[in-house]
Amino acid sequence: MRAAILAAGEGRRLRPHFSGPKPLIHLLGLSLIERNILTLRESGIQEIVIVTGCHRAEIEEALGDGSKWGIKITYVHNPDWQKGNGVSAYALHTVFRPEEKFVLMMADHIFEPQAVRAFVAEAEKISDNEVLLAADRNLDRVHDVEECTKIQAEHDRAQKLGKDLGDFNAVDCGLFMCTGALFPALSQAIAQGRHALTDGINILAKQGKVKLHFVDEAWVDVDDRESFHHAERMLLKSLVPDKDGLISRHLNRKVSLQITKRLASTPVTPNQVTVASFIVSLASALSFAAGFPLLGGLLAQFSSILDGVDGELARLKFLQSQYGGLVDAILDRYADFFIVAGMAYWWCLQTDQPIVALLVSAAALSGIPMSMLVKEKYKALTGRTYIPETDDGLWRYLPANRDGRLFIVMLGGVFNLIPATLILLAVTTHLAAIVRLVQLRKLM
Amino acid sequence: MRAAILAAGEGRRLRPHFSGPKPLIHLLGLSLIERNILTLRESGIQEIVIVTGCHRAEIEEALGDGSKWGIKITYVHNPDWQKGNGVSAYALHTVFRPEEKFVLMMADHIFEPQAVRAFVAEAEKISDNEVLLAADRNLDRVHDVEECTKIQAEHDRAQKLGKDLGDFNAVDCGLFMCTGALFPALSQAIAQGRHALTDGINILAKQGKVKLHFVDEAWVDVDDRESFHHAERMLLKSLVPDKDGLISRHLNRKVSLQITKRLASTPVTPNQVTVASFIVSLASALSFAAGFPLLGGLLAQFSSILDGVDGELARLKFLQSQYGGLVDAILDRYADFFIVAGMAYWWCLQTDQPIVALLVSAAALSGIPMSMLVKEKYKALTGRTYIPETDDGLWRYLPANRDGRLFIVMLGGVFNLIPATLILLAVTTHLAAIVRLVQLRKLM
Repeated sequence: MRAAILAAGEGRRLRPHFSGPKPLIHLLGLSLIERNILTLRESGIQEIVIVTGCHRAEIEEALGDGSKWGIKITYVHNPDWQKGNGVSAYALHTVFRPEEKFVLMMADHIFEPQAVRAFVAEAEKISDNEVLLAADRNLDRVHDVEECTKIQAEHDRAQKLGKDLGDFNAVDCGLFMCTGALFPALSQAIAQGRHALTDGINILAKQGKVKLHFVDEAWVDVDDRESFHHAERMLLKSLVPDKDGLISRHLNRKVSLQITKRLASTPVTPNQVTVASFIVSLASALSFAAGFPLLGGLLAQFSSILDGVDGELARLKFLQSQYGGLVDAILDRYADFFIVAGMAYWWCLQTDQPIVALLVSAAALSGIPMSMLVKEKYKALTGRTYIPETDDGLWRYLPANRDGRLFIVMLGGVFNLIPATLILLAVTTHLAAIVRLVQLRKLM
Repeated sequence: MRAAILAAGEGRRLRPHFSGPKPLIHLLGLSLIERNILTLRESGIQEIVIVTGCHRAEIEEALGDGSKWGIKITYVHNPDWQKGNGVSAYALHTVFRPEEKFVLMMADHIFEPQAVRAFVAEAEKISDNEVLLAADRNLDRVHDVEECTKIQAEHDRAQKLGKDLGDFNAVDCGLFMCTGALFPALSQAIAQGRHALTDGINILAKQGKVKLHFVDEAWVDVDDRESFHHAERMLLKSLVPDKDGLISRHLNRKVSLQITKRLASTPVTPNQVTVASFIVSLASALSFAAGFPLLGGLLAQFSSILDGVDGELARLKFLQSQYGGLVDAILDRYADFFIVAGMAYWWCLQTDQPIVALLVSAAALSGIPMSMLVKEKYKALTGRTYIPETDDGLWRYLPANRDGRLFIVMLGGVFNLIPATLILLAVTTHLAAIVRLVQLRKLM
């Protein structure tokens, strides 16, 4: 399937705060239109048509033919962009075949990527003469409802659309699945002197041809400075994965998202952050081994926080790679190993019972990978992801994941309780492995 | 899709060696027909019709309604079974709708399960008035070609079938995908006094309606004592998985398959073998810790061999479970941990440099799970299985998998070289993890 993006407008309301064309304004490291292009690519779309108007040259120069992202981008120019976005959308009638389904997006509406993925997957559900429109009925959550195009919906059909509707139960997210049915409707509206895309959609709505897809994910129409910051907050929030442990969710992410926000606009890559996190772990291990537990503990916690940043940055800038995920996972295990070995080394030097230090450290070392082993083997066998927050049940308060373990290490370092920390690690990791084996019996 | 199994014959040639009806003869823990029922179930078939004749009562009593296997079994009786298997097959015409596709098997033809799975998956490829026949053109590998029904094949169509064909290029495996087209052909043959299934198939072959599916897997028509033993060897050989390491493939399996063969006819379950293997590992660990390295080494190797038996037994008797696989994998990691900890304990007691023992043991302990972590994370991320024999390239001679590691432990125990063994384990496991991360860069 192909997609089209409308990027013809002037973007007047953001003018005082940013320079350059609005679609090219950078939000967390990517321009608005770049983010939409990559969101579409992630939804499986390989070919995108962009309608330009006001800033034709700058946009074409910035985006090129799409080859840098491995997709194909072509352009349609609408010299009458000032009339309205209905005219820009109508310019597409030369590009799409009458029976062809295509996604139509606005350059400046930003979505959580899964919203677009779910929408594109709905393509099958509309027939040849219909339009599917993404709509949001969580009105208390929508940003700046006043500025939105409102919808009177009956079940999954739009009855009427308009900015000034008094009686409405959803708003238009500016994301469409179109067929050729759109163009005669637009042409009719334009002939009547009504030049907004909504005018054409309204004609189809009257004929009962506008089906609605209700989104549950967040989105925002980036229109002014406030909505720009709202989009930033929304995207950062969407980076926290479901499978996060408690410490990660309630502590580490508070810091890591701020680091990610600052790194987003730099050329720093997720892989570089992975390596940096590993180096901080090594510094933690050396600190413990050299008898500086306070420093060791703090560095371990910092490494744990950085361990979240690489994934956040990768998801935020569409730089995820399976290989990156693999290397990150294995380096994390090595980092944990060095930290525990550093603590064990120091303990063994101090104690007159090295055999106890050895056995406790051995138990802690063997327990550390168990959490990951159980989860990955489960995923490899069943294809499902183990979600500690829900699947652990009441045991979710056990610090069984990396975030919890490194938090224990931090506390152990700060309070200089190395032997107790290793004992606690040994007990909790093995207990968690046993608990999960028992829990999984119900799930498999 | 439904399936039918012909189990009406007398089985005269096996009579002198076994008592009871031939379909109920036990081969490696399951009766011939039971194995075919479970093979069909594994191919996704939930409903099976069995044609009985000579031993109607015994067969119905032994198999019941199929509920013990979670499937549905019904019976059609053919009182004229003595006339030939064409009459038995014709008895099915009351059961299957004319347009219904169904699998037709003989009770006594035994296949590697993946052969049947692949055949059933071909169902789409035949049209309503055709028959698909599994054929084998690896004539030098077929057991007892003389006894087989031969086929003159042109491309993927059978021209002619018969026991005494002089000129043939494939043989009939006795596995069919039928449509209603079979019944008029059988009826015509029977009217002409020809009562074999082959007679009906021959009529269809003359009309160009017998498509061939060439099998690459092994199969055997269990007809006499020799073919019975051939089937045993074939099934045992099929239990060795592709992902086996070198020591496992060339050493452990030689012994484990013999153990599996003996356990197959007992009520011992795969889970019981998993636990037994774990207990032997614990005994190995205690032997090492108590200063009996020879015993420790031999027990470790025995545990490694038993570690293959649970999976073999599960595959052989269709008792695989994902949960069993998970528990087995995690118990293996614990077993390895205890064995290495046992060696480390003994070393630490003997040495005046416990810190060296601690660091080396820590490195060995952290290296052990790396092999599994990399493979499972790879599988979880990509859905593909890492096959050491091919994916490791030249590094496949590195003892990176459990079979190789426990072989090193065995040698270390036998030659009483505990510190050297732990150093070798530490080096090889981490080296293998690094090698695999590098190899996977090409595969991901």
